[in-house]
Amino acid sequence: MSTAPIGIFDSGIGGLTVARAIQDLLPRESTVYLGDTARVPYGPKSPETVRRYAREILEWLLTQEVKAVVVACNTATAHALDDLRAISPVPVLGVIEPGARAAVAATRNDRVGVIGTAGTVASGAYRRALLALRPDLEVVQQACPLLVPFVEEGWLVHPATRMVIEEYLVPLRTGGVDVLVLGCTHYPLLKPLLTHVMGQNVRLIDSALETARELSRVLGEGLAAPADNQPFHRWAATDDVARFASVGSIFVGQTPAVVELVNLKEHRAVS
Amino acid sequence: MSTAPIGIFDSGIGGLTVARAIQDLLPRESTVYLGDTARVPYGPKSPETVRRYAREILEWLLTQEVKAVVVACNTATAHALDDLRAISPVPVLGVIEPGARAAVAATRNDRVGVIGTAGTVASGAYRRALLALRPDLEVVQQACPLLVPFVEEGWLVHPATRMVIEEYLVPLRTGGVDVLVLGCTHYPLLKPLLTHVMGQNVRLIDSALETARELSRVLGEGLAAPADNQPFHRWAATDDVARFASVGSIFVGQTPAVVELVNLKEHRAVS
Repeated sequence: MSTAPIGIFDSGIGGLTVARAIQDLLPRESTVYLGDTARVPYGPKSPETVRRYAREILEWLLTQEVKAVVVACNTATAHALDDLRAISPVPVLGVIEPGARAAVAATRNDRVGVIGTAGTVASGAYRRALLALRPDLEVVQQACPLLVPFVEEGWLVHPATRMVIEEYLVPLRTGGVDVLVLGCTHYPLLKPLLTHVMGQNVRLIDSALETARELSRVLGEGLAAPADNQPFHRWAATDDVARFASVGSIFVGQTPAVVELVNLKEHRAVS
Repeated sequence: MSTAPIGIFDSGIGGLTVARAIQDLLPRESTVYLGDTARVPYGPKSPETVRRYAREILEWLLTQEVKAVVVACNTATAHALDDLRAISPVPVLGVIEPGARAAVAATRNDRVGVIGTAGTVASGAYRRALLALRPDLEVVQQACPLLVPFVEEGWLVHPATRMVIEEYLVPLRTGGVDVLVLGCTHYPLLKPLLTHVMGQNVRLIDSALETARELSRVLGEGLAAPADNQPFHRWAATDDVARFASVGSIFVGQTPAVVELVNLKEHRAVS
């Protein structure tokens, strides 16, 4: 048993869906979330740069004495997960593999759809993870660049959002997929509209939820918090904490009392 | 007379509307455009950070022997214009004042609307520039965070874009403005839809075009290119030149043959 918190990080705010899924599934666990808002977005940056950023954040989370780290960011998972696992003294989980495993388990016709940002789709990270599990799978990918801005504007069920989703999902519907992986941490907030457009026969795979389930397995009995633990939840960002708080409230349903400002460079200078 | 190029920079790609307006209005002039795509967006960053970035870019543009510099970025204009003017040996222009001046000249009822990104609207830069010119003006501002993503997706006349614009512009229509300042370098590409929604009686002020006009005045006869000049146009970015080229083609109507990759830090190390 351990009362230490779970460390969670993302390039920005999207990973809060993962934080929320963890809090829902594992209500005894404490969490420390870091959004690297000073350097968002990671998508267009080089793999080397993303690995350096991820290592800096891991170092900071370790000074907060976390017992496990969740990389709640598709880009950082794709580029830095192996690297972080090699150097971290605590378990490190990404968001891609849990979603891919759930998709392979759920499909009946071996046609799996993946939606994500332009960067995630172009990286092919989900396609690789899916084909590694089942090489004969047919994978239909679709980049949906407008969905993150719609979520951050809070227009989760707006008619314009629906119109955009209907257009983006055409190739997935004509491709006959029976499973759709939400390959971006923002997308769980659009589940009602996505379900409406894809229909009840297509199973949506929520990477945030699958990652929380994977975390539960990794913690097991050895690392889990005791039943009487009083959990705390800390939010931190590397810049623009005011916007983080206001947009974050869309993700977690309430405005946080405090968002801590973390300067990773100063931290490194004094550590 | 001078055949030296005009230096133009932006945090990313939006300033290409300004470059295009300059090329249209001053077809004899050469241009060098730098998009700081490695560090986009500037909006959430601190004024000190934006000033430092802008100084680095100015230094690079000066090594390219530009005869004038256009800050084709609202955030950099708001935070860094005075600073750049103080240290630059060549004239430096921003995008805010030319638009504000044109708006004050155009309004008949002294009610001026301004649309921009969340950062630009929150900074109040346009409101200040307008009120400095005419203190009794009524200024109605509206942040339109979804419009930049729609432009970069190339959905310039899509029904979803129209639906979003109709919703954003409600306060400006009910506020009875007779002039609307496009306070974001991306928005000139949405002029057809914006005109349609606001109606023919509202004058749109295109900051890109007004900045090009101001540049023409600043160059005068002394700095203008000779009538027989064969102009060249260079595009450069600090990261992700492939995306710059593909999204840039939405802005200038063609895919550029070459986008140069500039490393501002290496440049500083060797200069």
